Amino acid sequence: MKVGIVMGSISDWPVMKEAETILKEFGVEVDKRVLSAHRTPYELEKWVESGPDNGITVFIAGAGGAAHLAGSVAALTTLPVIGVPVKSRSLGGFDSLLSMVQMPPGIPVATVGVDGARNAGLLAIEIMAISNKELTDKLNAFRKKQVEKILATKFPED
Amino acid sequence: MKVGIVMGSISDWPVMKEAETILKEFGVEVDKRVLSAHRTPYELEKWVESGPDNGITVFIAGAGGAAHLAGSVAALTTLPVIGVPVKSRSLGGFDSLLSMVQMPPGIPVATVGVDGARNAGLLAIEIMAISNKELTDKLNAFRKKQVEKILATKFPED
Amino acid sequence: MKVGIVMGSISDWPVMKEAETILKEFGVEVDKRVLSAHRTPYELEKWVESGPDNGITVFIAGAGGAAHLAGSVAALTTLPVIGVPVKSRSLGGFDSLLSMVQMPPGIPVATVGVDGARNAGLLAIEIMAISNKELTDKLNAFRKKQVEKILATKFPED
Amino acid sequence: MKVGIVMGSISDWPVMKEAETILKEFGVEVDKRVLSAHRTPYELEKWVESGPDNGITVFIAGAGGAAHLAGSVAALTTLPVIGVPVKSRSLGGFDSLLSMVQMPPGIPVATVGVDGARNAGLLAIEIMAISNKELTDKLNAFRKKQVEKILATKFPED
Amino acid sequence: MKVGIVMGSISDWPVMKEAETILKEFGVEVDKRVLSAHRTPYELEKWVESGPDNGITVFIAGAGGAAHLAGSVAALTTLPVIGVPVKSRSLGGFDSLLSMVQMPPGIPVATVGVDGARNAGLLAIEIMAISNKELTDKLNAFRKKQVEKILATKFPED
Amino acid sequence: MKVGIVMGSISDWPVMKEAETILKEFGVEVDKRVLSAHRTPYELEKWVESGPDNGITVFIAGAGGAAHLAGSVAALTTLPVIGVPVKSRSLGGFDSLLSMVQMPPGIPVATVGVDGARNAGLLAIEIMAISNKELTDKLNAFRKKQVEKILATKFPED
Amino acid sequence: MKVGIVMGSISDWPVMKEAETILKEFGVEVDKRVLSAHRTPYELEKWVESGPDNGITVFIAGAGGAAHLAGSVAALTTLPVIGVPVKSRSLGGFDSLLSMVQMPPGIPVATVGVDGARNAGLLAIEIMAISNKELTDKLNAFRKKQVEKILATKFPED
Amino acid sequence: MKVGIVMGSISDWPVMKEAETILKEFGVEVDKRVLSAHRTPYELEKWVESGPDNGITVFIAGAGGAAHLAGSVAALTTLPVIGVPVKSRSLGGFDSLLSMVQMPPGIPVATVGVDGARNAGLLAIEIMAISNKELTDKLNAFRKKQVEKILATKFPED
Repeated sequence: MKVGIVMGSISDWPVMKEAETILKEFGVEVDKRVLSAHRTPYELEKWVESGPDNGITVFIAGAGGAAHLAGSVAALTTLPVIGVPVKSRSLGGFDSLLSMVQMPPGIPVATVGVDGARNAGLLAIEIMAISNKELTDKLNAFRKKQVEKILATKFPED
Repeated sequence: MKVGIVMGSISDWPVMKEAETILKEFGVEVDKRVLSAHRTPYELEKWVESGPDNGITVFIAGAGGAAHLAGSVAALTTLPVIGVPVKSRSLGGFDSLLSMVQMPPGIPVATVGVDGARNAGLLAIEIMAISNKELTDKLNAFRKKQVEKILATKFPED
Repeated sequence: MKVGIVMGSISDWPVMKEAETILKEFGVEVDKRVLSAHRTPYELEKWVESGPDNGITVFIAGAGGAAHLAGSVAALTTLPVIGVPVKSRSLGGFDSLLSMVQMPPGIPVATVGVDGARNAGLLAIEIMAISNKELTDKLNAFRKKQVEKILATKFPED
Repeated sequence: MKVGIVMGSISDWPVMKEAETILKEFGVEVDKRVLSAHRTPYELEKWVESGPDNGITVFIAGAGGAAHLAGSVAALTTLPVIGVPVKSRSLGGFDSLLSMVQMPPGIPVATVGVDGARNAGLLAIEIMAISNKELTDKLNAFRKKQVEKILATKFPED
Repeated sequence: MKVGIVMGSISDWPVMKEAETILKEFGVEVDKRVLSAHRTPYELEKWVESGPDNGITVFIAGAGGAAHLAGSVAALTTLPVIGVPVKSRSLGGFDSLLSMVQMPPGIPVATVGVDGARNAGLLAIEIMAISNKELTDKLNAFRKKQVEKILATKFPED
Repeated sequence: MKVGIVMGSISDWPVMKEAETILKEFGVEVDKRVLSAHRTPYELEKWVESGPDNGITVFIAGAGGAAHLAGSVAALTTLPVIGVPVKSRSLGGFDSLLSMVQMPPGIPVATVGVDGARNAGLLAIEIMAISNKELTDKLNAFRKKQVEKILATKFPED
Repeated sequence: MKVGIVMGSISDWPVMKEAETILKEFGVEVDKRVLSAHRTPYELEKWVESGPDNGITVFIAGAGGAAHLAGSVAALTTLPVIGVPVKSRSLGGFDSLLSMVQMPPGIPVATVGVDGARNAGLLAIEIMAISNKELTDKLNAFRKKQVEKILATKFPED
Repeated sequence: MKVGIVMGSISDWPVMKEAETILKEFGVEVDKRVLSAHRTPYELEKWVESGPDNGITVFIAGAGGAAHLAGSVAALTTLPVIGVPVKSRSLGGFDSLLSMVQMPPGIPVATVGVDGARNAGLLAIEIMAISNKELTDKLNAFRKKQVEKILATKFPED
């Protein structure tokens, strides 16, 4: 199982690499690209259409502003598409979020929070874990470690 | 494969039933409940925890206002959780959307658009289709019919 | 000279027909379609690409919610693309506006106000008038009549 | 009388410590924890349920983003719960505020302003002062000093 | 124990009466007034100052637009003040909410959701219950009934 | 003629001093104070009520967050009150603006833009100029100089 | 003394007539027009410039959407200009408010709340009252009656 | 063919120069000015009216806050006017965007994204390319290079 990660610009990479990081921690393979819904529509189309043949099971798309990338991917595949709204310079991230999440009936995008690439990676793992017992076990272990980490938190002055 | 649909109040049902409708069209079983993250936290906990034993593969949670329901479900399971922000009476739906999508790292919610229950259903199907060839075929057929329907649109005065 | 008008759904027509109305008043031919960026991406592509051959000079695209339609058209042509954000049921129209106007550098969309289809039509005329003296004359006459109409306004109780 | 302070992440502590500071100034004991509604739901449950036995009279909960923490505490106790929306990186703090204040009927959260931890502490004191004459006297003295401090303000150039 | 309910205009009463209703259900006495922070500042002052002598333990203030009422009450007393932002005709209720919740350090207002008068009443009860075992018992019974009511919900078509 | 300038906190002074600067440029006397609607309500009351006797003709009030100051002044006088919403740390200044401008019918506040203290000073001058020919002449000269300054602008690379 | 009232469209009249009503109650003369900053810029210019000669002391301008009218008037006169943002069909009135209040330094507009025409009228009266003892007396009487009216409010069920 | 670029303040130049840069890359002449709709209305009028005689074919206007500049230009010409909302210090750029895009029917402004001056330049080129084969060829070459640049992107760690 492999996850296809695409972003509209290399400037989204500092945010999006968190998706790759968590996926690799879970041993999931990643195929990552910079492709723009607006500037390289044909190349995006080709990459998404060839996704199933390339072993891609889930797509993660991150973009900012009029963030159409996730919707454009979703229009071209029936594989699950996870959208990461990347905070833009103005409008506080509302533009990225609204243009990603408010999809019309028929073509869903699974949107996570603004700059939520880590959660996008985890969501992809949860989706693949449905038919992969090993990933489910890893998720349970991950959750347990997460609990332990929070419980071990110390306040600075202690 | 079964989808668990939960909503915070029966008043969310006119929106949420679109999820059930599309799931049934695809032949997917539904287990639906009215359970509130705030008013019935223990009953919600029990239902979510017993989800895997009851055959639930994906959760869909719909709520409005301080819409914590999807996040509360996600906190209790590693199955994928889809959130439907239901438009509330005030604040234009921004409260429902933001309190659902802006999850902290570690516990993702796959959020769809405001009142986007139909897309939540379709997303659940896409997720289950990863390991279910029949659902993939149905999705492709569904998409084709959707195209035909749009192409057949007539302008009123024609 | 011909203007291509496209909308994501027939439900946008009550808003978008104002563009057609004003264009016809100016004697400009219209080629109108219902085509969705998300549900009929291939058909949209074909129509936009064949635009120049069909005599289209300017595109007008209207859509609501995650309103990618104008951006999708702009990605496929170097003809000017005018976007009409159509008010959606929730979020007050902010989603439609932001997802249309906040285009990334390289692919501009000339966005008008929410539900501003009449202005989209007028903007198309202004654009075509650059190389069409007759349209310029009609625009000047239109402006003059507009002034007269406002100056002739009577307050109800007079 | 004791106040239970809980925050979703240690990164909220720079904001939340203002609540502790003012409570200590008034001689009120504090029991503070880092516990997440989403990542440690069971541990949060245990802590809140044992609150009355541990002498807790009022809860203060601070969190950012989809800030469910105060609502999750309120769901598990009938003690008053004060919520502090902590400003998040994006969306200007609107997400934290709306997901905290817009609680459904039945389970109230007493929300203060964004990053308003000092006011949360004062509100807890006001609540406890109802049945504690000494705290009321201290509040009156505090208010008097506050007035004096403002009246003593000097403009820089004077 | 008595709760003082004040609203800026009689037009807020349809919303605010839900506070009175729940308080009466719990056997709590109510002293209610229409007094405006802007139009009757002196009368408001007199009423708030005489609150303790009249047996008032908690204030609830509801107002819309530039909703200063709760803040104005809080400026004049050290009793807890609960604010109910009442939805106004424009700006979706954001004006009422923000002008009530964003209080400066030193003078807290316990803000509930937009039009959340019922929760304001419940919060007042929770506050008074700290030193009133009977109210705590009633709150526990209320919560139990609330759970039962939700669990008894039937879907329309069943 | 004198203008009373009041701000809720000395931290508003860097913004508010622009009002004083422009007023002094026009030779208008200023009486400035730090007084909070919430923390020093009685002192504010006394100062506003004595305004006419102290020669104050116009009030300018600047505050941030739940910015009630201008409304509180307006409630206590029939002199014109100009409000300056001061940008707060969160919510982008929307809280300051909305809580200042959305006054209920009967008590107006003349609101200028966020951090618009210079315009508040100019507005006060325009108001006083109605019955002061000298100020009108100065305003006309000010406008002329403003035009000259803009026309003299040079682009950096020229 | 006379007040010039201008609105961008006759559709603003139901809102704007409240300004006329209150001004007439105070015995102030009104000169009202429908003139658009965008559609009749030259006619607006002429009317504003001739304002002083026609006895106009204060301008009130009401408009919706990209509400430039008040700013356009203010650009052409040094008389005080009061702006009334008229609620538009979409975007909840935020467009009207922001485009009216956020004026650049140098040209102030005294903005009142959305649809706040009555307050615009009162503000004009307050401004003219500075040099008109009779208007001040009427304002004081108006305020007194306003207090009496609120104090006489009866709750429906009483 | 020439493009007239106007901005309300020299402080907009760092944003607006991107329009000039791209226009020069395409060999289009530019006539640029600092002129304010509010502070230099008569000079703006003169410049816009003389536009056609000076060879201007398209206008680009950039401004922030209550950004009336583009609308003011559009009111005075039937040439196409492109508006660039420049991000202001507060309100996240929403004020600039809404006051530019929400034009009333009859006077359109072709609005691009916040700080989108580069796209404004490209839109002007697309408009002029309708009757200029050379510009169309350059646009096609520009698009191709844009694709190549994106496809050549390397991830930092590769």
